[in-house]
Amino acid sequence: MQRDVRQNFSFTLKAHDGQVRLGEIATPRGAIRTPAFMPVGTAATVKAMLPQTVRATGADVILANTYHLMLRPGAERIAKLGGLHRFMGWDGPILTDSGGYQVMSLSKLRRIEEHGVTFQSHVDGATLELTPARAIQVQCLLGSDIQMVLDECTPFPATRDQAKASMELSLRWAERSKQAFRELSAPGQALFGIAQGSIYPDLREASAAALKSIGFDGYAIGGLAVGEGHQAMLDTVDVTTAVLPEDQPRYLMGVGTPEDLLAAIAHGIDMFDCVMPTRSGRHCQAFSWGGLLNLRNARYAEDPSPLDAESACPAARYSRAYLHHLVKCGEVLGPMLLSWANVHFYQELMAKARESILAGGFAAFAEDVTRRYSAPSDLDGDKT
Amino acid sequence: MQRDVRQNFSFTLKAHDGQVRLGEIATPRGAIRTPAFMPVGTAATVKAMLPQTVRATGADVILANTYHLMLRPGAERIAKLGGLHRFMGWDGPILTDSGGYQVMSLSKLRRIEEHGVTFQSHVDGATLELTPARAIQVQCLLGSDIQMVLDECTPFPATRDQAKASMELSLRWAERSKQAFRELSAPGQALFGIAQGSIYPDLREASAAALKSIGFDGYAIGGLAVGEGHQAMLDTVDVTTAVLPEDQPRYLMGVGTPEDLLAAIAHGIDMFDCVMPTRSGRHCQAFSWGGLLNLRNARYAEDPSPLDAESACPAARYSRAYLHHLVKCGEVLGPMLLSWANVHFYQELMAKARESILAGGFAAFAEDVTRRYSAPSDLDGDKT
Repeated sequence: MQRDVRQNFSFTLKAHDGQVRLGEIATPRGAIRTPAFMPVGTAATVKAMLPQTVRATGADVILANTYHLMLRPGAERIAKLGGLHRFMGWDGPILTDSGGYQVMSLSKLRRIEEHGVTFQSHVDGATLELTPARAIQVQCLLGSDIQMVLDECTPFPATRDQAKASMELSLRWAERSKQAFRELSAPGQALFGIAQGSIYPDLREASAAALKSIGFDGYAIGGLAVGEGHQAMLDTVDVTTAVLPEDQPRYLMGVGTPEDLLAAIAHGIDMFDCVMPTRSGRHCQAFSWGGLLNLRNARYAEDPSPLDAESACPAARYSRAYLHHLVKCGEVLGPMLLSWANVHFYQELMAKARESILAGGFAAFAEDVTRRYSAPSDLDGDKT
Repeated sequence: MQRDVRQNFSFTLKAHDGQVRLGEIATPRGAIRTPAFMPVGTAATVKAMLPQTVRATGADVILANTYHLMLRPGAERIAKLGGLHRFMGWDGPILTDSGGYQVMSLSKLRRIEEHGVTFQSHVDGATLELTPARAIQVQCLLGSDIQMVLDECTPFPATRDQAKASMELSLRWAERSKQAFRELSAPGQALFGIAQGSIYPDLREASAAALKSIGFDGYAIGGLAVGEGHQAMLDTVDVTTAVLPEDQPRYLMGVGTPEDLLAAIAHGIDMFDCVMPTRSGRHCQAFSWGGLLNLRNARYAEDPSPLDAESACPAARYSRAYLHHLVKCGEVLGPMLLSWANVHFYQELMAKARESILAGGFAAFAEDVTRRYSAPSDLDGDKT
């Protein structure tokens, strides 16, 4: 679809089921039904999938990585080619991260200072700088619909002092990001703040409160799913959402497994992204309504049943025996089909979650799925 | 489609344009319009493509490799799973080779004797035997629609004595293959003989005449495109087709480039297979109506034009800049799109060849394409 310039970014809460929220984000490039899962299209491609296939799984929005795209092919180049949507053939909304997380995890020789981060490109070794203003400039050059402030993803574990200093730096960067966004963004584009503070409740509260007073179009919770554990993650979500505005979207970054997603929805989260469905697909793992399957497992060699009889995904109709054969032979069709089936599963999970919220049955739905996913899976079974 | 058991294998010549032939092969799994190009689905997958995508390029028939499938997942296993068509999700006709060529090129420790070939699997080192009867048995277990006799693909160059001995062994194997096929095949399945004889005209004539007197449903010309050169290939095609029956299909195995295909059609060939479109796709090369492109070439980094504006393939609508980006990043979507575009190009080439034959303009069409493909390509240009 064309970008509808009359449509502003807005969020409508449509239903509640306890803390659980059902909503819809309006953007100039179409609506995002929440709870929403965003497939990750790191380098302007959701790995091993065509854009129209991603769309057909039910995805309303995808995520792209600012760090990867600023290094290759470059934000100015993408702008010259008409922006990221045209470049990659995705006409729905795109959320971009700020690049901060990947600078920390992928680049070498990074130096974090008040003005920003200096780092070496992992592609060609060039020395580059990412500041709050540059992170926004890059996202505007890409034409991103939902942009993220530059933050420091606090390493885990961190002492309280480390977490506090890091969170406060992120707040100062958030203000500078917002200033740059005011100057550079187009009508209808949105900017999200990111709460930090490790697992310290008072720091999380302070971060959320300060972001709220700066004012953003939505709020992300960063620095989780980094080893703190399921319960600490949920506790941190709780203290943060308690402070965040009720009427704006809440995005839990980098999460996660089906169980994590459902638990976080139960705690009031609206948006997610994770590489798990595509990465698992490349590693022979399939998310199905019967639980997690490892297609390398010899038990599938003569199994004529479809990958997932409960899924509506065309890729899930291929037999387990065929998928086993493909992954054993290293045929690229294996990752193609498994990535597709997994992204579809995640979208079905969100669609069914939304239906169950409307019907007032989210808790039972989440319990059922969580039970399926905590049953013994064949991931630890005999491999061949 | 379901297999139509009332439909026998048959070939109808529909038009001539000089030596050039237009025809149609009827099979229980649908028609094959000739001249036909068969995409290669070695291990029960046309690499990096979905079966329905292969079909949508215009392919009526695909080729699968007996050698690969007998090693992995095994012919008996595929039979147990309902046959190759069901296994891989392709409901059109499938031609299988006999496995002979790959035994020679891929396996270790092969011993060629009168009764057959003993070899070591390149997958797990197991010692296996391929005889004329076993080659047919495997193809029947796969459920192949068009089967090939076991032959020895004579190495090039070969002395006349070597070529004669090899050709005569292949003839004795062809008789035994036919005997096995009589015993094992299902109604509507077809068996093709394979002419050998290196580049010696009298040996090629003798081979073709002997095969004709055994009697097959179609005739392949093997042992070409192995280094003998374009003119020697065409001369050998000529001496062979002069002996072969006019009213049966002729298949030039393992050929080739667009120029080779058009030249061979001009010399009376009806069927082709080659890994070139898919293999080139994995190596960043694109067959287009403007000639061969190397998408790694830096000149495409900011080229917003589509891969091939003259192609009707959805993959050819992606910009050269985007495809360049994908291959530079090693993203699997690059090979996916380029394989798709290349297989589509080969099918468009055959479709336009068929149209031009009907219109009496094949020579002009072939000359035009050959000119485009002999123009300086960017394959030797600056790489980045």
